[in-house]
Amino acid sequence: MRPLPIGVFDSGVGGLTVLRALQAALPHESFLYLGDTARLPYGTKSADTISRYAHQATRALVERGIKLLVVACNTASAVACDDLRAHFPGIPVLGVVEPGARAAVRASKRGRIAVIGTEGTIKGGAYTRAIAREDGAAVVVGRACPLFVALAEEGWTDGPIPTAIAHAYLDDLVDDVDTLVLGCTHFPLLSSVIAAVAGSRVAIVDSADTTAAAALELLDRADLRASEVDTTPTRTRVPVRLLATDGPERFARVGSRFLGLTLHADAVEIVDL
Amino acid sequence: MRPLPIGVFDSGVGGLTVLRALQAALPHESFLYLGDTARLPYGTKSADTISRYAHQATRALVERGIKLLVVACNTASAVACDDLRAHFPGIPVLGVVEPGARAAVRASKRGRIAVIGTEGTIKGGAYTRAIAREDGAAVVVGRACPLFVALAEEGWTDGPIPTAIAHAYLDDLVDDVDTLVLGCTHFPLLSSVIAAVAGSRVAIVDSADTTAAAALELLDRADLRASEVDTTPTRTRVPVRLLATDGPERFARVGSRFLGLTLHADAVEIVDL
Repeated sequence: MRPLPIGVFDSGVGGLTVLRALQAALPHESFLYLGDTARLPYGTKSADTISRYAHQATRALVERGIKLLVVACNTASAVACDDLRAHFPGIPVLGVVEPGARAAVRASKRGRIAVIGTEGTIKGGAYTRAIAREDGAAVVVGRACPLFVALAEEGWTDGPIPTAIAHAYLDDLVDDVDTLVLGCTHFPLLSSVIAAVAGSRVAIVDSADTTAAAALELLDRADLRASEVDTTPTRTRVPVRLLATDGPERFARVGSRFLGLTLHADAVEIVDL
Repeated sequence: MRPLPIGVFDSGVGGLTVLRALQAALPHESFLYLGDTARLPYGTKSADTISRYAHQATRALVERGIKLLVVACNTASAVACDDLRAHFPGIPVLGVVEPGARAAVRASKRGRIAVIGTEGTIKGGAYTRAIAREDGAAVVVGRACPLFVALAEEGWTDGPIPTAIAHAYLDDLVDDVDTLVLGCTHFPLLSSVIAAVAGSRVAIVDSADTTAAAALELLDRADLRASEVDTTPTRTRVPVRLLATDGPERFARVGSRFLGLTLHADAVEIVDL
């Protein structure tokens, strides 16, 4: 079988936190990542628009050849996954919401769960519905935390300013919950500040790790795992190919923080959707 | 002459601060406002992409009939104004950068000017060039302040968090300048915090007011001013028509803060560019 890559799609660089978790869990796989940087952020846009963008992005990845699509954007996962499955029946589609919801239910001792994310993710209520499917008795509260996105992109991930903003968003929210879901791919960069403000009684669930575990399971079930013995010559092997719809310099600079290693702008290929 | 409206274009709701200044300066005019909310923000996107979006937005306004185009988005003004003038020769085009630069030079006593804006505006250097054309000896420093945009959209416009963020962005910047240009339409909402942090030695220039004055001058010169005696029946007179490319609810909710009066979602017409 031709060793097709796993496609990963996000509105921008945030999904690189999911790519990082996928690479750690699946070191023998190759990846094709697409960040729709020309149209980010999705979090403030309507469901119809997000769905249309998700279709275009998926088509671009499917045309290049992928064996699995990971929708690494919470907003797009919440809105477009079912629709993408219907339109691209040949490709298994994995979002970040379902694995995150499952992990939250597992982590929660009293079934009181808070979800933080963008305005679009929270308003859409997909986490609430996904958690209810896992545990009908769970009580879920959501809160949009848009400034966390700006902080992560700016690289202001610790110190008094992120801490003050975390207090403003979270203080009254965490009082009555035992689990907090980071329902936005930008938020893992702020996880230490968020965890400190939430306090040790509150379990923090990052859906990147749980999505990677779900991807592994899905590949196994479908017998799509890459061989551990890679027969591709090292010279031609590309573990990650990065596509973006705009701004390779910014993608590389900001993306480096999200992926946890230095990216160069000339490694980012610009595509038009 | 048919009383055509003035077209105002922005990437989102920020330009409503410019619309507000235009309405105050030109109470007899009607306005057609377009916010490209499906693709905001422009500030982090490349010049080519911003130019393409500005063309599409301008075409949409020109097709509906306007007598003057005000590009209320700093990023688009910086990148696309000359290009728009070449492509739409029948429509006078006014950006916010030139009037802002002129006002800065007038306000500055020692010719030491700081400009704050989005990443795209600052990186593009349009204010620096425009100020240099007015005063070749002026020293201009620029700084991108992306978190100010998120604060304005969130409505966090005073108190300790905006103040701490303003200190982080501005403390070393304002040390050596006598004038600070608010080079982003979102920033007037934070002007009291910015002015307090900058200190009373520093003059604050808001390009919305100066753009409105320039629009008045341009209309007079071209003999395009609306008659002060409005003969349109009150019932059919529409002083402002609002178009957006996405999310009428969010446009109305966030836009109300920028325009300074309550907007309703059903007053926002969705258009596809």
